[in-house]
Amino acid sequence: MNTFGTLFRLTDFGESHGVAIGGVVDGMPAGITIDFDDIQHQLDRRKPGQSPLTTARNESDKVQFLSGIFEGRTTGTPIGFIIPNKDSRSKDYENIRHTFRPNHADYTYSAKYGLRDHRGGGRSSARETAIRVVGGALAQQALALHGISVEARAIQIGGTANPDMFEQEILAAKKDRDSVGGVIECIISGVCPGLGEPIFGKLQAMLASAMMSINAAKGFEYGDGFNAASCRGSQQADNFHIGDNGRVCTRTNHSGGIQGGISNGEDIVFRVAFKPVATIARQLETITDDGMPTLLEVTGRHDPCVIPRAIPVVESMAAMTILDALLMHRSRYKFASVSNS
Amino acid sequence: MNTFGTLFRLTDFGESHGVAIGGVVDGMPAGITIDFDDIQHQLDRRKPGQSPLTTARNESDKVQFLSGIFEGRTTGTPIGFIIPNKDSRSKDYENIRHTFRPNHADYTYSAKYGLRDHRGGGRSSARETAIRVVGGALAQQALALHGISVEARAIQIGGTANPDMFEQEILAAKKDRDSVGGVIECIISGVCPGLGEPIFGKLQAMLASAMMSINAAKGFEYGDGFNAASCRGSQQADNFHIGDNGRVCTRTNHSGGIQGGISNGEDIVFRVAFKPVATIARQLETITDDGMPTLLEVTGRHDPCVIPRAIPVVESMAAMTILDALLMHRSRYKFASVSNS
Amino acid sequence: MNTFGTLFRLTDFGESHGVAIGGVVDGMPAGITIDFDDIQHQLDRRKPGQSPLTTARNESDKVQFLSGIFEGRTTGTPIGFIIPNKDSRSKDYENIRHTFRPNHADYTYSAKYGLRDHRGGGRSSARETAIRVVGGALAQQALALHGISVEARAIQIGGTANPDMFEQEILAAKKDRDSVGGVIECIISGVCPGLGEPIFGKLQAMLASAMMSINAAKGFEYGDGFNAASCRGSQQADNFHIGDNGRVCTRTNHSGGIQGGISNGEDIVFRVAFKPVATIARQLETITDDGMPTLLEVTGRHDPCVIPRAIPVVESMAAMTILDALLMHRSRYKFASVSNS
Amino acid sequence: MNTFGTLFRLTDFGESHGVAIGGVVDGMPAGITIDFDDIQHQLDRRKPGQSPLTTARNESDKVQFLSGIFEGRTTGTPIGFIIPNKDSRSKDYENIRHTFRPNHADYTYSAKYGLRDHRGGGRSSARETAIRVVGGALAQQALALHGISVEARAIQIGGTANPDMFEQEILAAKKDRDSVGGVIECIISGVCPGLGEPIFGKLQAMLASAMMSINAAKGFEYGDGFNAASCRGSQQADNFHIGDNGRVCTRTNHSGGIQGGISNGEDIVFRVAFKPVATIARQLETITDDGMPTLLEVTGRHDPCVIPRAIPVVESMAAMTILDALLMHRSRYKFASVSNS
Repeated sequence: MNTFGTLFRLTDFGESHGVAIGGVVDGMPAGITIDFDDIQHQLDRRKPGQSPLTTARNESDKVQFLSGIFEGRTTGTPIGFIIPNKDSRSKDYENIRHTFRPNHADYTYSAKYGLRDHRGGGRSSARETAIRVVGGALAQQALALHGISVEARAIQIGGTANPDMFEQEILAAKKDRDSVGGVIECIISGVCPGLGEPIFGKLQAMLASAMMSINAAKGFEYGDGFNAASCRGSQQADNFHIGDNGRVCTRTNHSGGIQGGISNGEDIVFRVAFKPVATIARQLETITDDGMPTLLEVTGRHDPCVIPRAIPVVESMAAMTILDALLMHRSRYKFASVSNS
Repeated sequence: MNTFGTLFRLTDFGESHGVAIGGVVDGMPAGITIDFDDIQHQLDRRKPGQSPLTTARNESDKVQFLSGIFEGRTTGTPIGFIIPNKDSRSKDYENIRHTFRPNHADYTYSAKYGLRDHRGGGRSSARETAIRVVGGALAQQALALHGISVEARAIQIGGTANPDMFEQEILAAKKDRDSVGGVIECIISGVCPGLGEPIFGKLQAMLASAMMSINAAKGFEYGDGFNAASCRGSQQADNFHIGDNGRVCTRTNHSGGIQGGISNGEDIVFRVAFKPVATIARQLETITDDGMPTLLEVTGRHDPCVIPRAIPVVESMAAMTILDALLMHRSRYKFASVSNS
Repeated sequence: MNTFGTLFRLTDFGESHGVAIGGVVDGMPAGITIDFDDIQHQLDRRKPGQSPLTTARNESDKVQFLSGIFEGRTTGTPIGFIIPNKDSRSKDYENIRHTFRPNHADYTYSAKYGLRDHRGGGRSSARETAIRVVGGALAQQALALHGISVEARAIQIGGTANPDMFEQEILAAKKDRDSVGGVIECIISGVCPGLGEPIFGKLQAMLASAMMSINAAKGFEYGDGFNAASCRGSQQADNFHIGDNGRVCTRTNHSGGIQGGISNGEDIVFRVAFKPVATIARQLETITDDGMPTLLEVTGRHDPCVIPRAIPVVESMAAMTILDALLMHRSRYKFASVSNS
Repeated sequence: MNTFGTLFRLTDFGESHGVAIGGVVDGMPAGITIDFDDIQHQLDRRKPGQSPLTTARNESDKVQFLSGIFEGRTTGTPIGFIIPNKDSRSKDYENIRHTFRPNHADYTYSAKYGLRDHRGGGRSSARETAIRVVGGALAQQALALHGISVEARAIQIGGTANPDMFEQEILAAKKDRDSVGGVIECIISGVCPGLGEPIFGKLQAMLASAMMSINAAKGFEYGDGFNAASCRGSQQADNFHIGDNGRVCTRTNHSGGIQGGISNGEDIVFRVAFKPVATIARQLETITDDGMPTLLEVTGRHDPCVIPRAIPVVESMAAMTILDALLMHRSRYKFASVSNS
C-alpha cells in the first residue's frame, strides 16, 4: 500500500538510510511544462537544517527525474524520480538495532514483518515525505492551470495559537531537550463545484486519508470540525446566495467548502493535528526484541517540532488529492451532453 | 466510488425514496455461520423512531439476503442483500425539487451530476448507512472468530461531556426545533499487532477515510488526537514492558493502539465529531436551481441529534476497516516461513 | 473480485439457485435517458429456452432496477438491480452434493472455500452472465451517445466456419447427447483514437481480462491474433494515410484497431474461443468429496453449445470495457489546454 | 495504469532513451533472502545482443536496488530499483520525430497524449520489459518457497512448430531484412488448488491480462484453447481420480490446470502468440504528424523475432500473477477455522 490515489497516483519507496528514496507519479496529464525550480523550492521548504527550529541533520534533497518528461513537458507516461540519501551515519543507530524505541514504529514493524531496517527508523522515518513533496509539487503545477491553489500554515504550536509566540514555543521545547506538537490549517482555493465521489470517496474522506497517512498526524477536521459537535444546527447554516461573480455562494463557510462529500466552490478548509515528535533526549523504559526490559536514551538529531517541515507535506497531500478528484470528476462530467467530435 | 475496502469490500446502492437500498459484501471469508438475529439487532439500533431522541420517521429495516450464504454459512461468494424502502411520502419533498436546502447536498449534487433525485435527499440521505450496518455486522461476526470486538459510545452531546445530561441536551434542541452535534468514541479490542499497511494504508488513514465517509462527520482523531498538539513529547511516551500475559504492552496508550500506522496490540481508540443535522425547522435564505433567491422552511421529520443512530454506523465502518486490514495482513504474514504443505 | 472495471464498475452477485442474482453499476454517467425495453431485449437474447439450439430451462430474466435512475434518467449514483430466480428445481442436484462433476468448478470451489452451494453450479453457473448483460446494455446506451457500437457474431461452431452449417453442427451434438464449442468475433466501431492505458492497462489487456472472465472462454486474440505468429513483419504492415473523412486511417487492419495498447480509430476486432459446455449426458469417472471413486451421469438440462447465448455476453463485456477506457481517457484528455471556466 | 497487480504490485516507469528505467515492487513478503545473481541472470536472458538471433543493440541491464532489502533479506517495504539506459543514440531517431511508423505506437501516443518522446519508441518500446523481468525474478524467488515454478519455451516460430528449425526460420527472416512471429507456451508447476478469484478475477483472466500487456502479444489461450472450440464436450472431460500422492488429480489436462477460474492443482498451461516485430527494413507508406503522406524506411537495429527475448518476460508476468493470486488466496483461506493465537 505504497501507492496513493486512483487516477493521479504516487508510488513511494525508500528508507531513511538506504541508497536513495524515490517515487513514481502515474497519471500526470500530458503537455504540462514543468517548473523544476519550483519543485526544488518545495523540497527546500521541507528540508531539515534550515533554521534553529529544525534538526541539524543535513539532507541534500536533490531530485533527479528519470522519465515521463520530454523536452520540458510531461508526456502522460509515468514520472520516475529519485533523491539520493547522504550523510547517513548508520552507526548512530546500532544501539537501537535490538531495542524498541517507545512511540516509534520499531516494535510494530518487527511484529508485522518479522524484521526491520533499524537505521533511522528505516521505512517509518519521515524521510519519505520528501517524495510526497515532489508528487505534490507536480500536482500543484497541474492544478494551477485550472486556477486552483493550496496553502497551509501553522495555527497552533504546543499550547499557543498566537503566531508571534510559535518560535519561542519551539525553542523552549528544544532547550528542554523535549519536543512539541501543533496544528496546521490548509486552505484550497479556486476549486470548482463537483469534486468528490460519494459515498465512500467523499472529498473529506479522501483528504482525511491523505492527511492521516503523514507521520505524526493525530487528527483531521474540516470546516467547523470538532467545534461543530458543540453547536446547534441553527448556528451552522451556510445560506446560499448568488455572488457578485454571478456564481452560487454561501454567506458563511461552516461547511469548509464541502457539502455531501462534494466541493461547493467555496474555499476548502481543513486542519491537521500533529503530536510532538517521539524522538526526545530522555531516558525511557522499554524492551529489547527478545523481551528483556531496558532503558533507552536516544541521542540522534531530531526536530523539536514537526510543524514547520510538515507544512509543505500537508500542501502536497492536499494537492494530489484534489488533482485526483478533479480527474475523476472530469471523466464523467457532461458525458451525456458531449457528442462524438 | 460506492465500494469500500480492498479485500473485504462493501458496495452500497440506493436512495432514500427509491424502491430499495442494498449492498454487496465481497470478500467475506467462507465457512462462517451467520447470526441473522444479530444483524437485525444491529439494524434496529440504527433504526429511527425508537425513542423521543430520534426521528419519528418509520423505516422498516428488514434485510433480505439474496446470495453468498448457503445452509446458514458463508460460501466465500458475494453476499447480496436489499432493504426495501417504505413510508416514503415523496410528496413531502415537492417544495425542494427546485430549491437548494442550505448545508445539504442539494446544490453540490446538482452541480456535479446536472440533476438530482430531490426526494428526501436521494443518495445523500443517511438512509444508506443502514447498508453499512449490515456490512459491519457481517464483519463483526468474522472478527469475533479472531477475538476482536468493536464498541462505540457517545462522549459528548452539544456542549456537554456528562452522559447524564445527554438526553436533556437533545430534548432541549428538539424543543427549540433545532439540532445538536456530538462526539462518538470507538474502542477496538483484541487486535493483534501488525494490522495496517504503511505508508498510505496506515491503519489510522484507513479508519479516518471510513469515518469521514459517514454523513455529518466533521472530524477524526485517534489516541490523544488534537490534544496531543498541545503536549510535549515527554508527556506522550508509551513505554514498553512485558505484560502479565507475556506479551509486549505499553504502560500508557497515548498512541491509541497504533504506532507507525500499524496496530501494536493495545486497544485502538478513536473519536469522530458530528455536526448538528442540517435539517432544522427554521426559515433559511437560499436560492432555487435557476438562481433566484428564496426563503425555505423544511418541515420534514428529522433527528434532533445524529449521535444515537450514528453509533452502530461508526462501529460498522470500524469493523469493516479492521477486517480488511486483517485480511491484508494475513495475505503476507509469515509467508517466508511457511513451506508448501 | 466480483467487481469489474475502474471508473465504470459492475459488481455482480448471485447463485444459480439462490433467491435472486443482481448487480450494481457504479460510475454510469449522469443524465442518460435509459431505454428499458432495449435492456430487456438484450436479456432476452441471452435467455435460455429460445430455440432448439439452447437449453429448455426456463429462466425468467426480468430485471428490476432499484436505484440510480430518476424519472427515466441516470443520476450518477449507483444503479442497483436484481433478477429473481425461478424454476430452480434444486432437488435435481442432490446427486452432486458430494460428487465433483468433471470439468466443472465443483472441486476447485470446494478446495478454495471449504464448502460450496452445489445447486446448479452455484456461483460458478453461467446464470450470473445475465447480470453482465444488464451492465453491458447500460454501457452500450452510454457509448451510443458517443457514436460507438459493439457487435458480435459466431464465426465458428465446432469444426466448421460456414454459418450455413452452424445450426446443423449444434443439432448433431445435441442428438449425440454431447456438446460443441465455437468462436465468437466482436467488432467495435466508432471508437476514437486514444483509448487504452499503457502499459498494464493496454486496451487488449483490458479486453482479454474481460473476455477470459466469461464462463467457458478458453482463448482470446485481436487483429490477426494467432495467425500473426506465422507471418512475416512485411505481411503485417498497416500503412497510414489520410482517409476521405480527413482522418488518419490505415490501409489494412492487421492491428485490430489497437496499436501500442491504444485504439487507433479503426474498428477494434477480436475473437474469443469457447469450449464445449462441460455438462454432457455421459457417464464419467470422478470422485466424491471424501475422495471415493465413483461414476457420475449428469441428467440436467443444458445447452448443446454456449455460442448463441454467449454472443450478448461478449458484447456486454466489450461495451463495459470500452466505456471504462473512454472514461479514463476523458479524465486527462486535453487537461493542459483547458482553462478554468 | 503503470501498476500491475493487487497485493503483489509492480509499478514500472521509463522510456527507451531516458536516463533510466525503473520499478517499484510493493507487497513482496518480508524475510525472503534475495538471490541477486539469479535476478541478473534473468535479465541477461532478456538482454539483446546475445546471439545472431537478437538485435545487436547493446543494452547494459544492470539493476540497482535502492530500498526494501536489508542485509540481504526483504523487509516487507517497497523495493525500488533502476536500470540505467546506455548506448542511446537518440539521433538515430530524428527521422521519425514527425513521422508515424506503421504498426508502432507513434500515432496512437500522439493522439492520446498530444505529444510523444519519439526516441526509440519512448515509453512504447519493449525496453520496459526489463523491469518486468526484475519483478518476475523476485516473484519467482517467493514462489519457490512454496514449491511453485514457472517455465516457458517457444513452440512455434513463423510457420514451423519444429524446434530444430526455429533458428533457421529466424535467420531466414533476418536475411530478408524482415521479421517473424511465434508462439510461447508456459507451464506453471506446483500450484496448490484454490488460486483465482471468480468471477472477474478468474485465474485465466488475470493471466490473460498479464500476457496481453506484453509488447507484440496478439493472443492468449489456456488448456486446449482455440482447439477446444472445434471439439465435442465428450473429448474434453478431465476425469477426477486420487493420485499416487493421495491428492485429487485429473486423468487429462484439457482444462490447463484451471476450472471455474480457480487452479485445480494440475500444471497450469497457457500459450501466447506474438506478431512479427513491426520494425522492418522496408520502405513503408505513412504520414507525418501534420498529415502529409510520406515514405519511411526505418534503419535502426531490431530483433528479427521477439520470441527468444520474450520468454523470460512471459515467465515474469506469469510469476507475478501467480504470486498475487497466492497472496489473495492466503488472505481468506481457512479464516473461519483459525482461532486467535
